[in-house]
Amino acid sequence: MAERNIFAELDPIFHPGSVAIIGATGKPGKVGRLFMARLVEAGFRELYAVNPGEREIMGIKSYPTVLDIPYPVDFAMILTPTDSALQAVRECAAKGVKTIVITTAGFAEAGKKGKELQGEMVRVARSAGCRIIGPNCIGVYCPSSGLTYSLGQSMESGSVGLVSQSGFFADYVTYRTTANGIHFSKAVSCGNESDLTATDFLEYLGKDPETEMIVAYLEGSKDARRLYNVCKEVSKKKPIILWKGGMTEAGAQAAVSHTGAMAGSGATWEGGMRQAGIVSVKSFEEVFDCLHAFCLQPLPSGKRVGIVSAPGGIAVATTDVCLELGLEVPKFSTRTIERLAKAMPPVGGSINNPIDLSLASAVNPQLHGDAIRILAEVADIDMILLIAIAGGELLRDIVLRATADIKTKKPLVVTEMVGTEESIGRDFPLLLSSGISVYSDAARAAKALSRLCEYARFRAIRPAAAQENSGSTSETPATSGRDAQVMETALREGRTVLSEHESKEVLRAYGIPVTEERETRDEREFREALDEIGFPLAIKASAPALAHKTEQGLVYPDIRSEQEAVAAFTQIMAKFKGEKPAILVQEMITGSRELMVGLSKDEQFGPCVMFGLGGIFTEALEDHTLRVAPIDRREALDMIGDIKARNIIGAFRGMPAADVDQLADILVKVGAIGVDHPYVKEIDINPVILAGSKPVAVDALIVLSGQDEGRNER
Amino acid sequence: MAERNIFAELDPIFHPGSVAIIGATGKPGKVGRLFMARLVEAGFRELYAVNPGEREIMGIKSYPTVLDIPYPVDFAMILTPTDSALQAVRECAAKGVKTIVITTAGFAEAGKKGKELQGEMVRVARSAGCRIIGPNCIGVYCPSSGLTYSLGQSMESGSVGLVSQSGFFADYVTYRTTANGIHFSKAVSCGNESDLTATDFLEYLGKDPETEMIVAYLEGSKDARRLYNVCKEVSKKKPIILWKGGMTEAGAQAAVSHTGAMAGSGATWEGGMRQAGIVSVKSFEEVFDCLHAFCLQPLPSGKRVGIVSAPGGIAVATTDVCLELGLEVPKFSTRTIERLAKAMPPVGGSINNPIDLSLASAVNPQLHGDAIRILAEVADIDMILLIAIAGGELLRDIVLRATADIKTKKPLVVTEMVGTEESIGRDFPLLLSSGISVYSDAARAAKALSRLCEYARFRAIRPAAAQENSGSTSETPATSGRDAQVMETALREGRTVLSEHESKEVLRAYGIPVTEERETRDEREFREALDEIGFPLAIKASAPALAHKTEQGLVYPDIRSEQEAVAAFTQIMAKFKGEKPAILVQEMITGSRELMVGLSKDEQFGPCVMFGLGGIFTEALEDHTLRVAPIDRREALDMIGDIKARNIIGAFRGMPAADVDQLADILVKVGAIGVDHPYVKEIDINPVILAGSKPVAVDALIVLSGQDEGRNER
Repeated sequence: MAERNIFAELDPIFHPGSVAIIGATGKPGKVGRLFMARLVEAGFRELYAVNPGEREIMGIKSYPTVLDIPYPVDFAMILTPTDSALQAVRECAAKGVKTIVITTAGFAEAGKKGKELQGEMVRVARSAGCRIIGPNCIGVYCPSSGLTYSLGQSMESGSVGLVSQSGFFADYVTYRTTANGIHFSKAVSCGNESDLTATDFLEYLGKDPETEMIVAYLEGSKDARRLYNVCKEVSKKKPIILWKGGMTEAGAQAAVSHTGAMAGSGATWEGGMRQAGIVSVKSFEEVFDCLHAFCLQPLPSGKRVGIVSAPGGIAVATTDVCLELGLEVPKFSTRTIERLAKAMPPVGGSINNPIDLSLASAVNPQLHGDAIRILAEVADIDMILLIAIAGGELLRDIVLRATADIKTKKPLVVTEMVGTEESIGRDFPLLLSSGISVYSDAARAAKALSRLCEYARFRAIRPAAAQENSGSTSETPATSGRDAQVMETALREGRTVLSEHESKEVLRAYGIPVTEERETRDEREFREALDEIGFPLAIKASAPALAHKTEQGLVYPDIRSEQEAVAAFTQIMAKFKGEKPAILVQEMITGSRELMVGLSKDEQFGPCVMFGLGGIFTEALEDHTLRVAPIDRREALDMIGDIKARNIIGAFRGMPAADVDQLADILVKVGAIGVDHPYVKEIDINPVILAGSKPVAVDALIVLSGQDEGRNER
Repeated sequence: MAERNIFAELDPIFHPGSVAIIGATGKPGKVGRLFMARLVEAGFRELYAVNPGEREIMGIKSYPTVLDIPYPVDFAMILTPTDSALQAVRECAAKGVKTIVITTAGFAEAGKKGKELQGEMVRVARSAGCRIIGPNCIGVYCPSSGLTYSLGQSMESGSVGLVSQSGFFADYVTYRTTANGIHFSKAVSCGNESDLTATDFLEYLGKDPETEMIVAYLEGSKDARRLYNVCKEVSKKKPIILWKGGMTEAGAQAAVSHTGAMAGSGATWEGGMRQAGIVSVKSFEEVFDCLHAFCLQPLPSGKRVGIVSAPGGIAVATTDVCLELGLEVPKFSTRTIERLAKAMPPVGGSINNPIDLSLASAVNPQLHGDAIRILAEVADIDMILLIAIAGGELLRDIVLRATADIKTKKPLVVTEMVGTEESIGRDFPLLLSSGISVYSDAARAAKALSRLCEYARFRAIRPAAAQENSGSTSETPATSGRDAQVMETALREGRTVLSEHESKEVLRAYGIPVTEERETRDEREFREALDEIGFPLAIKASAPALAHKTEQGLVYPDIRSEQEAVAAFTQIMAKFKGEKPAILVQEMITGSRELMVGLSKDEQFGPCVMFGLGGIFTEALEDHTLRVAPIDRREALDMIGDIKARNIIGAFRGMPAADVDQLADILVKVGAIGVDHPYVKEIDINPVILAGSKPVAVDALIVLSGQDEGRNER
């Protein structure tokens, strides 16, 4: 596939020479008037109105159709009703318009008919080399070009890019953020994504030199795997703050009726977002909180927070919050304490971390500044959290003066704990436009720091120059070839569920440690196998499509003698009326730590690796984590550290620490199986038992999709 | 103990006829001027200043000492430095002052000397029948009496009571809340609690007819058990919103240096707070968010939320949030949908739950009102969450009109999603003072609803009229008496750790199901026991103070033959050089679901019951929950539902549901043991195995404190 030059492809959209508003009107209360007014107010010069019923709108000549405009039109907005949109698209195509924004709703998100209409619009546009944004969107905001989607938005240029499937999100975030003095390079509301998608725009903004960070709202993606790849690449250079709507099942249903987007499984999205270095948020508040930190603060070089608080009680509570977020609030070094003691009068509170300035700071607000200046300079702190009882210009001046000539800037977040909702709201633009990340609650300020830390960690281990994710290529050894043989045999025989023994053969071909075992067909083979494996051992019925063996009484663990073995054999056989199963004689792996490793095929992301607690706890505790395959070693280690029961992986109650490298290796290899064999639908290795420190696959199940199905998915 | 009439005792504090400010001054920038100015501004009439160096302060005559005031003084504030405070207290005592507020810091929180000085002040005051609030506090705010601790605070009376160990919390919460039009009955900052404690004031506010809800900040309590009992009683009538600072270890350290309060273990506080029906919060923001809901909204009668949202995307995300919080967002009934469809024009979005009003609501804001009016009337929704793109007076009028003549009010929370930080801040007092619970983020509005629900549930199962907690009295059967015998024997022999067998005898005496077992002293007894118990069985070494038997190789489970039994016997004996242990022959309980039940003695709360996952997961998953003993059946059931692994309690992977009644009974009884026997220091029943549905105590350990220690604790 030829490399797509997304920057060259999409950049012209943001810099049109001329714009036509199809469906513009002078009538008050109409959408057609709103959009017209926005562009007129923004001072866009080559602006044309299209409305057969009006001759002039806001001082601008109106044409019956776009074809009647005697000048070239680069960019058209179609605001007409659903049924006349296609005709407008046809005319735009004929006119040679390069970009069409369709704001009108009632297409793919409204049912089958709308979906067909939407498809037809795209066909018409694409055949004329024209691109569509929307429908069901509000379009594009690019202050440097005079392009806007909203009334009253600032037209100052900045470095934040925005992509949203929700028009409201695009509108509200840019409006509220610019009011606080933080500005945007480009923003785009892409609605139903009939042609250009959020992924396209994310990729574009990743390459756009004017954009330094990206904020996005998505409810789903028709191509989540590409989205994932794009985000992972972009995150190496620029933070992406992403709000993924529709995470729970009911939420996802609402999403379907909202924009026609498909919402993937919440757990897969969560895993994929972590893997891609995304700063994931779940509310508008978190969007703003992260924006205010990522826009104005550098990335920290560690997770040690120094807290300076005027009120002592909040210092206590904020320490709690920081620790819960995984940050550190270390005691200061003697040197730092000496510096603080020297610079500050004896305060009623504490000068160790957290610093409690006490009432003294009410009398002398400069104490706030003295403390943060010292913390900005010392080596034992990576970030500063100030809880101030000063506000407005006083607070601004204190902070700016204290940090003015600090050489290496550290992240500094400020909580303003004085005044009312109203006065704090008034201080936001004042402080933010001066580069001070301000919060109205210390817990939120702490959270913003933890998000900076998380992202800094991703950047540290994923430098922008590093090569692409290479899980399936460089890190995975070649297989013995037995994997393909086993699966092809099964498919040839019309089977899609491999037996435990076959499944383990596939795993073994990839070098995954499995139990030693023999599949026996008769009593003679069975007795021989007992000798070979040795007691204690486990005896299981073995046949393809034999799930839930334990519940069916087809598993006999910890068999200690031939007598017990023969009894088990007899009992299994008695359970089968017709065709008798093979009997698996398996070495007995003992260990009380049971894990599970799996592979599932997500509708949107494709193969995903799963890791979690095994045995009966897999379902009970829902303690598992997912990643998009392929995964590399570092991602596998991340997964292992991700589960709540991670304590059992280390040395634990007299048991040795698990061989984490070997465990990570299993995860990487399971991901590789999914990538190498597109017809693998599910892998379930449960339990993986820690035999001492060594993980061993004790039971396994591989499910294939029919071969044709598999080929289609390739 | 004579019933303390806390209301009669504390009410006069809030209604003094006269106030003296000791350490008042006219000098700018001094605390003595601030407090003076506050009371002068509040218009308090019988106000006297005490300062030997000044003759008149703000137009009020100043006396050299409180003794020189020729009128009675009910209430004195001591603002003088630490070293002169005791003298001031002496003079107040001599003068017959009834209440002294000491704002000065540097007492118990500053070390041993300060602690002694503080103790002396209390002795002097109490011997004259005078009560102390503080030191290290800002005192009392009671608008109806003209009493205040803060400049610029509203002097309008309301129904919120406040108690705080932090002066800043008291000041800031009353200031910001009254600025929004929500007012207080009484507020008190009790600092070091040298005499009167937060618990005293909570009990008082519980009985105060002017107080309808309480907000509190605590970092610890010297008498957490009484605090717990008081809160549990008060919560039956009035909600208590409590922020407990110092929950983590580092946080707790900061707390010690802050007010000298002792912070109990986080998990115990959490359990106790839930048990007492407390609305627990962790930040100022949560305090305000809960206040705005509990002050203005009724309690819901169920957990079904109807969401009305102008922006569709947030409707999706807010549905997610509600579900994560345990609320329901059910689809509407056909009748409700019909009503909505009739009342509202075809909107672009959805009229099922969540209702997506779409852009239509921008053109016609009254749609917001139409939708909430219908949801307020229908039977299939208990609460309403409105996400509005209107603000200010428009929003206020829409909401008030829509809900004006609704008979049964439902909780309604409103999110204002329009404008900037500043304009939203401006709308807060406008909306809140009109009784509209407004939020700037839908996720926070949803959380406020979930808190109302939680508390409504507590109120429903703990009606105010119900009798006191009766865990140890009515619900627990009398014991066989064997429990006391076993423990007394051990103590007489100088042992504080009971053997497994002794521990189980205690449990058995309470009717807790334990394994059938024999303690054998020699091989003959051992062989007899094998016959009696029958194979398979478990063999364990048995001696007092034998902990971690499994790790030491002193436990042989699943012994299937006499040969295996004798081998185990021999191996155990070989491990002991000197005195041989007894051998426990125990029925083998099989079941893969292991739980743990325990009792611990919290320094502040006394005996607490613990329940969690058992076996190796107890430590690994930290999946356990605590309650203050005694507990009743309902509290025991709450605990069982509390653990993350609660799924395994129900029917699970072919295993039957646990007998929850029997499990709850074990929890209740373990609590009773702790209450009945004050010298029981720890009980550890781990594992309790579910044998089918029946819980059985398979291993147990009881630790006693020395008898003297126990008696002291009584």
